[in-house]
Amino acid sequence: MRIGELSRRTGVPVPTIKYYVREGLLPAGRLTSPNQAAYDEVHERRLRLIRALLDVGGLKVAAVADVLAAVDDGGRSVHSVLGVAADLIAPRYAGGEADAERDAARVLVRELIARRGWLVEDDSPAADALATALAALGRAGHGDFAQVLDTYADAAEKVARTDLAYVARRAGRDGVVESAVVGTVLGDALLASLRRLAHADGSAWAYVNGKGGVASSTGVGEPREQARD
Amino acid sequence: MRIGELSRRTGVPVPTIKYYVREGLLPAGRLTSPNQAAYDEVHERRLRLIRALLDVGGLKVAAVADVLAAVDDGGRSVHSVLGVAADLIAPRYAGGEADAERDAARVLVRELIARRGWLVEDDSPAADALATALAALGRAGHGDFAQVLDTYADAAEKVARTDLAYVARRAGRDGVVESAVVGTVLGDALLASLRRLAHADGSAWAYVNGKGGVASSTGVGEPREQARD
Repeated sequence: MRIGELSRRTGVPVPTIKYYVREGLLPAGRLTSPNQAAYDEVHERRLRLIRALLDVGGLKVAAVADVLAAVDDGGRSVHSVLGVAADLIAPRYAGGEADAERDAARVLVRELIARRGWLVEDDSPAADALATALAALGRAGHGDFAQVLDTYADAAEKVARTDLAYVARRAGRDGVVESAVVGTVLGDALLASLRRLAHADGSAWAYVNGKGGVASSTGVGEPREQARD
Repeated sequence: MRIGELSRRTGVPVPTIKYYVREGLLPAGRLTSPNQAAYDEVHERRLRLIRALLDVGGLKVAAVADVLAAVDDGGRSVHSVLGVAADLIAPRYAGGEADAERDAARVLVRELIARRGWLVEDDSPAADALATALAALGRAGHGDFAQVLDTYADAAEKVARTDLAYVARRAGRDGVVESAVVGTVLGDALLASLRRLAHADGSAWAYVNGKGGVASSTGVGEPREQARD
């Protein structure tokens, strides 16, 4: 298909498609004349992946280029690509300055990793992001929120197990790697949105029950079954 | 304390503090002379909250100003503030154009809300964000990922219940509202980081087991107990 058709199918403007080609995110079309190129379903699929990572994943163009370069490097093992991609798409938060809260957060992360028996580096980008978030909680006066860390870790483990099972069902190296990247990035968005909906539901139940809204220590945080009675 | 001391304690540069005051994020100090103002612990705490929302929460300055205005509006009930704050800090993703994937995603979200019995509006910003993420998955050729939506919803509910219990334990209206804002925004970051760590752990177990890394359909997604044997 011509670039105009690719644009129409994906909703991505022609100049943007050309920009992605220049930046190495999208392979160039096959030249059919000196100034005309043909694109196929591989381009279309890749373009949709790029948009998902940029729009919902919030990645920068340069990060998407790096992730896709790792995906396309056929010489890498699946495990190696997943490691590289995971580091590239790890959340990165500002506010990572070294201070007492940051030191305390790093200790919490190391303890958590040991307690869960996780086979992960405690200085990986994901561990670093967790320490940054915990340090920010500490600085904001909510260091005790860390008490619920294991509830969060339980939920994260459950979701991660489902993710890995989904990825393992895909056919071939490229399918596995691509679905791991998509699932990792878009899964964050699903989880964040669902958590907000569950908050709204919990708050509504407390409110509907006439127990004074979430300020009541009895109306909130109870299991749904109780709240309904 | 003077502004220099406030800056030293929080690590926020003096010009940035002045900018926050101008933008209405931080109340002005109490004037002790025509060109000198005194700041106290309330300013310090608010400043740390602002930094957490900006740095880790990734909110824009204008959004932080709106959230804090709602928090500071004493005429609002807790339930009303929580609703306003939830809408303001809902994740917002690009790529929300109307198309067939978007329509299909909205149906999925409505069905999910009905299935879970959630008392939420299906056109709230959170429901909208969920539909955007699901539509992006569909466009990227991963519409079948929606099959794991209930696993995600289970995890989100569990975490949300813990969040609400944490919030309900705080003293007074301001404590409840402030902790809800902090917990909502920083909780997303905790959950995303923990999910990445759990992915790395799952991938490592599959790899260590010599089952060919995550490409193997038997080495991944198994319960940890099995994988260790």
